[in-house]
Amino acid sequence: MSKKISQLAPRKLKKIEIIKGISVSITHCGLKKNNKEDLILIKLDKPADILGVFTKSKTPGEPVIWNKSIIKNGKVSVILVNSGNANVFNGSSGKKSLIKIVNKLSEKLGIPKEEVFIGSTGVIGEPLDERKIIKKIPFLIANLKNDSNSWLRASKAIMTTDTFAKTHSEKLKVGNNVLINGIAKGSGMINPNMATMLSFIFTNAQFDSKLFKSKFYETVDKTFNSITVDSDTSTSDMVLFFSIKNEETKLSKSQKKDFFIHLEKLMTELATMIVKDGEGASKFIRVKVKGARSFNDAKVIAKSIANSPLVKTAIAGSDANWGRVVMAVGKSGVKIDPKKISIKFGKLTILTPPKTFLPKNLSKIDKYLNKKEVEITVSIGSGKFEWTIYTCDFTQKYITINKDYRT
Amino acid sequence: MSKKISQLAPRKLKKIEIIKGISVSITHCGLKKNNKEDLILIKLDKPADILGVFTKSKTPGEPVIWNKSIIKNGKVSVILVNSGNANVFNGSSGKKSLIKIVNKLSEKLGIPKEEVFIGSTGVIGEPLDERKIIKKIPFLIANLKNDSNSWLRASKAIMTTDTFAKTHSEKLKVGNNVLINGIAKGSGMINPNMATMLSFIFTNAQFDSKLFKSKFYETVDKTFNSITVDSDTSTSDMVLFFSIKNEETKLSKSQKKDFFIHLEKLMTELATMIVKDGEGASKFIRVKVKGARSFNDAKVIAKSIANSPLVKTAIAGSDANWGRVVMAVGKSGVKIDPKKISIKFGKLTILTPPKTFLPKNLSKIDKYLNKKEVEITVSIGSGKFEWTIYTCDFTQKYITINKDYRT
Repeated sequence: MSKKISQLAPRKLKKIEIIKGISVSITHCGLKKNNKEDLILIKLDKPADILGVFTKSKTPGEPVIWNKSIIKNGKVSVILVNSGNANVFNGSSGKKSLIKIVNKLSEKLGIPKEEVFIGSTGVIGEPLDERKIIKKIPFLIANLKNDSNSWLRASKAIMTTDTFAKTHSEKLKVGNNVLINGIAKGSGMINPNMATMLSFIFTNAQFDSKLFKSKFYETVDKTFNSITVDSDTSTSDMVLFFSIKNEETKLSKSQKKDFFIHLEKLMTELATMIVKDGEGASKFIRVKVKGARSFNDAKVIAKSIANSPLVKTAIAGSDANWGRVVMAVGKSGVKIDPKKISIKFGKLTILTPPKTFLPKNLSKIDKYLNKKEVEITVSIGSGKFEWTIYTCDFTQKYITINKDYRT
Repeated sequence: MSKKISQLAPRKLKKIEIIKGISVSITHCGLKKNNKEDLILIKLDKPADILGVFTKSKTPGEPVIWNKSIIKNGKVSVILVNSGNANVFNGSSGKKSLIKIVNKLSEKLGIPKEEVFIGSTGVIGEPLDERKIIKKIPFLIANLKNDSNSWLRASKAIMTTDTFAKTHSEKLKVGNNVLINGIAKGSGMINPNMATMLSFIFTNAQFDSKLFKSKFYETVDKTFNSITVDSDTSTSDMVLFFSIKNEETKLSKSQKKDFFIHLEKLMTELATMIVKDGEGASKFIRVKVKGARSFNDAKVIAKSIANSPLVKTAIAGSDANWGRVVMAVGKSGVKIDPKKISIKFGKLTILTPPKTFLPKNLSKIDKYLNKKEVEITVSIGSGKFEWTIYTCDFTQKYITINKDYRT
């Protein structure tokens, strides 16, 4: 299927900065058709520190199961990622395939198996022929490079249903050349059997274990865990965060603060790129919920709005249908006082407390909703917590793509 | 908008049987356009016993708030239902409108306010002009009738986005003429601001309070609470159950058993008619989950499958995409053993434990999925509980209808 690039794709990607101590190689092993690149190897010069979060699916893929079992060691030497097959639900043969690949990498590189991470994305329930991957391992090891173009090629090779590659780089303003790079693939759900979100983030900053860990999880929650395309959760989602050993890039206290700002910026960029490649998407939507009793309340309400097919179709049709927003707040299950709710589209208020509808803004909002990026803000009026969820609209193209997948 | 009747509509409705002691009148009061009937009054000769369940939405409509406040008395003399306006989120004026209507009915009929129930269905957040309703009350009182045609007209007058009227009658096989009648309206979501499900069920059987209550809730759970069109919960849903006083229709023990069988049959008929009028629906889907550790586990998994846009689009496209079913089981959050799952479409097995895929049935299943009514059965293999959820497929028409609502 020839795919048009999403109309929400960024015009230009930021150039990927080079972080020393890490390299990548890319090849075609035959899991994707038409000689498309479908296999990458990322190698650390020295074992790096690693943090990760994985899908909460109760039917996770083999790579998720494996990575979860070794991440407690916190060390990584290599990660191999294939597209074209997710290695999910393949019975005992799926696990055997994974182990053979891990063993081969461990043997060829002389590194412990516990430092070999795997990522797979593609069809669920189709047996993975690991021989295709294994025979390419010597080539991959012999062709490792560390330049911007290779990283861009790598980010393309892990695409499945994506319509554009997703990379981002951040550089700290102060001192010693601290960098953060990230690549991601985000399901456009064009072929939702292949639905996965993968993201790999690299920095030469040194982990200060406890602080980094909590900040990392917190930032994943605010970014990757705050996007939704269609409420369907993949079996293969993972975000891995690599800290490359480098004595020169220890962070001072003020740099740490700066680092986390940049980390959040990078994760937000990558996560929202996935939404902008959400399949059929014609509009990018920020759903902001303010004045809640807890972060969780704000998040649950924002997700309820962002996942509502009725809200998403209204935005697709540039329809200031605030009644559907009220409905989605109501169905979230969070205890609220209806009299205190206010609703804005962009800067235009449509509902103020207590339950006062401002009809004069309706046509202005219809016009505002023609933009490619829109914002819905709901104030609950019962606390001081807020959360933002990023989503896209729901168009006929979503149905066409998913209905016609196998034909 | 001229609406075509859903392709899943029943060919013929069962004739409504006449239950003595209750009557209905129907009129046009101006809430719907084109002189369409939009207001009905149902009157009991003597106060009847009533049970009810209401939406769990945290932004409920005024009629839901009112009915919930009086249902603890368990008595009903009259119910007035309008379509064309849901009286939801209209600030203090919404409540005032409702009270004026209740007062007028109470005064004109000489009955306590606590026996006056109200139902409203239509747009959210549009002020209700209660004068339109109030001026029709004398006409409604003067024109009460109890014949099949009037009940059919009443079930049409409460329609909003429905494409066909929903009525059903059940008669007990043994002795003394015990009947159960029900009417329902089910949102086709053609105009989802008006999304509501209402159902009113009448019987001349006498409530044996405790048993009836628990059986009623149990049956609502298995029927009306087990349907989903698009996962969006309305602000106005209600099911009310009326027992008309009649000394002759006391139930014997064996009749009680028979009664509950017929009650479940009637509720299943009405609930599935709503799904068959699900907007854009081209297929009716039964999602059966077996072998779960509890009813709730089975229900949560079945709902996760039935609400998955990816499963619903696959069925629309007659695509045996079992990977999406696995995904939906996984995202449900229920703890399961992936090795024990089996999946069937109709009688055709596609997955047997442990994780064994039967590709030979793929094309047979694609063909099976061309039927108008299809069944997905998932066995979890870890217990003895099962649950069925009723839903419809997800077609382009859903998007068209909801996107173009206000234009």
